[in-house]
Amino acid sequence: MADQLVKKIEINVDCGEGFGRWKMGPDEELMPFIDTANIACGFHAGDPAMMVKMVRLCKKYGVKVGAHPGLPDLIGFGRRRMELDPHDVYCAVLYQVGALKAILDAEGVPLIHIKPHGELGMWTMRDPAILRACLDAIKPYGVPVYCADNPLHREICAEYGVPFQKEVYVDINYDAEGTLLPVSKSKMATPEDCANRLTSIALEDRVEDIDGIVRKVGLNGEPFGICLHSDMPTVLDNVKAVRKAVDEANAKRGFTA
Amino acid sequence: MADQLVKKIEINVDCGEGFGRWKMGPDEELMPFIDTANIACGFHAGDPAMMVKMVRLCKKYGVKVGAHPGLPDLIGFGRRRMELDPHDVYCAVLYQVGALKAILDAEGVPLIHIKPHGELGMWTMRDPAILRACLDAIKPYGVPVYCADNPLHREICAEYGVPFQKEVYVDINYDAEGTLLPVSKSKMATPEDCANRLTSIALEDRVEDIDGIVRKVGLNGEPFGICLHSDMPTVLDNVKAVRKAVDEANAKRGFTA
Amino acid sequence: MADQLVKKIEINVDCGEGFGRWKMGPDEELMPFIDTANIACGFHAGDPAMMVKMVRLCKKYGVKVGAHPGLPDLIGFGRRRMELDPHDVYCAVLYQVGALKAILDAEGVPLIHIKPHGELGMWTMRDPAILRACLDAIKPYGVPVYCADNPLHREICAEYGVPFQKEVYVDINYDAEGTLLPVSKSKMATPEDCANRLTSIALEDRVEDIDGIVRKVGLNGEPFGICLHSDMPTVLDNVKAVRKAVDEANAKRGFTA
Amino acid sequence: MADQLVKKIEINVDCGEGFGRWKMGPDEELMPFIDTANIACGFHAGDPAMMVKMVRLCKKYGVKVGAHPGLPDLIGFGRRRMELDPHDVYCAVLYQVGALKAILDAEGVPLIHIKPHGELGMWTMRDPAILRACLDAIKPYGVPVYCADNPLHREICAEYGVPFQKEVYVDINYDAEGTLLPVSKSKMATPEDCANRLTSIALEDRVEDIDGIVRKVGLNGEPFGICLHSDMPTVLDNVKAVRKAVDEANAKRGFTA
Repeated sequence: MADQLVKKIEINVDCGEGFGRWKMGPDEELMPFIDTANIACGFHAGDPAMMVKMVRLCKKYGVKVGAHPGLPDLIGFGRRRMELDPHDVYCAVLYQVGALKAILDAEGVPLIHIKPHGELGMWTMRDPAILRACLDAIKPYGVPVYCADNPLHREICAEYGVPFQKEVYVDINYDAEGTLLPVSKSKMATPEDCANRLTSIALEDRVEDIDGIVRKVGLNGEPFGICLHSDMPTVLDNVKAVRKAVDEANAKRGFTA
Repeated sequence: MADQLVKKIEINVDCGEGFGRWKMGPDEELMPFIDTANIACGFHAGDPAMMVKMVRLCKKYGVKVGAHPGLPDLIGFGRRRMELDPHDVYCAVLYQVGALKAILDAEGVPLIHIKPHGELGMWTMRDPAILRACLDAIKPYGVPVYCADNPLHREICAEYGVPFQKEVYVDINYDAEGTLLPVSKSKMATPEDCANRLTSIALEDRVEDIDGIVRKVGLNGEPFGICLHSDMPTVLDNVKAVRKAVDEANAKRGFTA
Repeated sequence: MADQLVKKIEINVDCGEGFGRWKMGPDEELMPFIDTANIACGFHAGDPAMMVKMVRLCKKYGVKVGAHPGLPDLIGFGRRRMELDPHDVYCAVLYQVGALKAILDAEGVPLIHIKPHGELGMWTMRDPAILRACLDAIKPYGVPVYCADNPLHREICAEYGVPFQKEVYVDINYDAEGTLLPVSKSKMATPEDCANRLTSIALEDRVEDIDGIVRKVGLNGEPFGICLHSDMPTVLDNVKAVRKAVDEANAKRGFTA
Repeated sequence: MADQLVKKIEINVDCGEGFGRWKMGPDEELMPFIDTANIACGFHAGDPAMMVKMVRLCKKYGVKVGAHPGLPDLIGFGRRRMELDPHDVYCAVLYQVGALKAILDAEGVPLIHIKPHGELGMWTMRDPAILRACLDAIKPYGVPVYCADNPLHREICAEYGVPFQKEVYVDINYDAEGTLLPVSKSKMATPEDCANRLTSIALEDRVEDIDGIVRKVGLNGEPFGICLHSDMPTVLDNVKAVRKAVDEANAKRGFTA
């Protein structure tokens, strides 16, 4: 199980988060610089043709694919709280991941992880019943779930036997309690800020919080995922800067997988 | 391949064609009388929780499961023509069948066939590019496609190596050319009409058309599928009457699989 | 303003709460027995053609029309909590009521009231910002807002100059605090229960709560609205029984408008 | 009636054609350079909050507002053929225009015209029943319908008493029959191409078709509308170049209204 976790620091971004003719991030431009793409599955963003396009892009660029299921809320982009029953969450995640899996199978590309999107991801960190609903749907795929580090995932993923891949964010801020702040409450980060934070986390297990106070991250020397927001206008520069910092950190840390 | 086709006359109906709180047919009441349920996959009808419910009902009643993908048109129930590219049709079918397959896998129930719904099914009988798009998505599942008999399916399914399961309808009419008429252009059929037509088709390979003229069906002695419309108000009586007629016909024909 | 309120006890039910081919209540069968129909406006239920059909039915049966806007949640039927900004609520209500108003204008039928549906209605009783958002959208129409009696509406509708029409429910229960319980937490009511409760409210300003304890309603002798759930299987019998009770109560109370 | 038509050459663009978090054209950047905005009404694009935002932007910049109703097809952006009944088209247009009208009324901005979007607009040029369905919905508003010149509109708008405002396109091509070609079949036009074509149309009633052959347009000296595609990447430069050309042409022609 643990051998499904990352062996080096890896960059993931959300991809395919347009809908029909609408685009969100610069998906293809990002591909050369990322390790893993979280592909939206049609509920908060994405549609079948976009998913096929994304899977083919990932194949072309050698990018690994994760599923990125969300709440059924196109107009809110899956970022609004909605009162779904845990059973409905289970069904929605199973449906979305299955839809992507069929496309991956048709294209001969493996599913590498599953990462609930936006409010669904946040909800799994707050509510054990929702996390369990997601894990019920995720467990059969035998792949890790990606999330920022948090006590619920540490405990319940272990109980389920689902690998939990911790990931960090460097384009938004942590508060004094180590909780991630949404984009709207974070300070604008430059590409250099992103790269510097990554280096600090990778080499020192430390990062500045929103108040400028340096805090321990708690990764304990393990490699980790790093997620960059593909819907920020600066994402391409952020990703390029972080790519360089990640490569250097992996070299220094001797992460070579 | 041919051994995936039905070994006796079997009844299928569309199930799970509600949406959210809205119901369509009497799904559970029909279960004891049918062989196979075509489960709607969320585009013309159905939603993730309803699909899970249907799969569990099928398991409970020993009913086999087929996927019933449709055009993305909830308000038109997938019965209106829409100008999708063949590639979009391919992506939409793959997405929907994959979503159902994930639910089936989670419940330990096999996928037995795939049957495009409504206008999508009609379109596959008119347009080779659309049939090919569907077969591209269907072929990896290694299961038959269900459809009324027609030249396009006979030719292109053979070319693709996808088993083509012919099915007949007895609650709507055929016209003089042997083409199925939509519900709106058919004469109201009583349960007895349905049963009598089934018996005539099964034992004599003949059926009355809309003008009352008896015509050859062309099944050549093979067992076949029979589809009944679950959205007709009389469906439960139709299914019960046809169940009896099918059982008798199977016995007379020596279909015992 | 006060002269827009009901002059006698009047029955309203939600109508047009199907979607596309899906039906909810027995809309036309109810028409002869009701005073007012709350027509769904497409967000939680209803679609443009159904709205036109409902308006024409109301015209045919002489039923008055109210707008019944809801949260944008077809699959949840507008009964789930969703975290919309008050501004988004304002925009959504304005949009929906405007859509219905255009249909009413085309058919020459006046708009008589506005009644937010389901969770949106419940939300207006809990959150002043949401009630204000609704009233900002409602006020220009110069018609009353319908709701169960509650302190927020009493205060804020007066501040806005929007008439507040109190209504009671008799097919679900009130709890000990006088708060309405959802269908799922209420005891099944027979048509006689409904009629008896209406009579008790109309003549004695009292009703039994869920525990059978008789409590004061607080209508102070004013005429009022009574809403019956059109999605209950027993709605037609409920409406017939309550119609009789309402007519008798109006006669006894001398409400003759 | 005729006095509702434009008195000088006026530029219109489609606005508010995003959805939720998705954007389409540079709406606000275009505002200083256009006369009229066609605001999407939620079926092919747009949502209630975006419509409110657009109406407020138009008010801020002194831009006139038209309604831009479309087919119910978000994923296809209203550009795919769909087989709606004329009655359903009537209901859909009435619903959308009514929704926008409510927002306009709330903001104190008048509705100036109605322009069906994409495939709905094309359909009105091909099918009299669809044009009639739209005009049934449009006529009560007493405003002109905008469309490229075509025989159906000339005849049926006159019959309905709905003013028909002819408009031209300069960022896509006409074919040898004078029919507009879709973006996908047109040659890429530079801002200079757009401006030159406008000048040629305005001053000489002539324009080059896709084969470079100069053809008569047939505007007979009347002022007209000109529509630019807000979803082209070059739209801002196109609009600036055409604004200048329009102002010069209006001056030369003595159109001063």
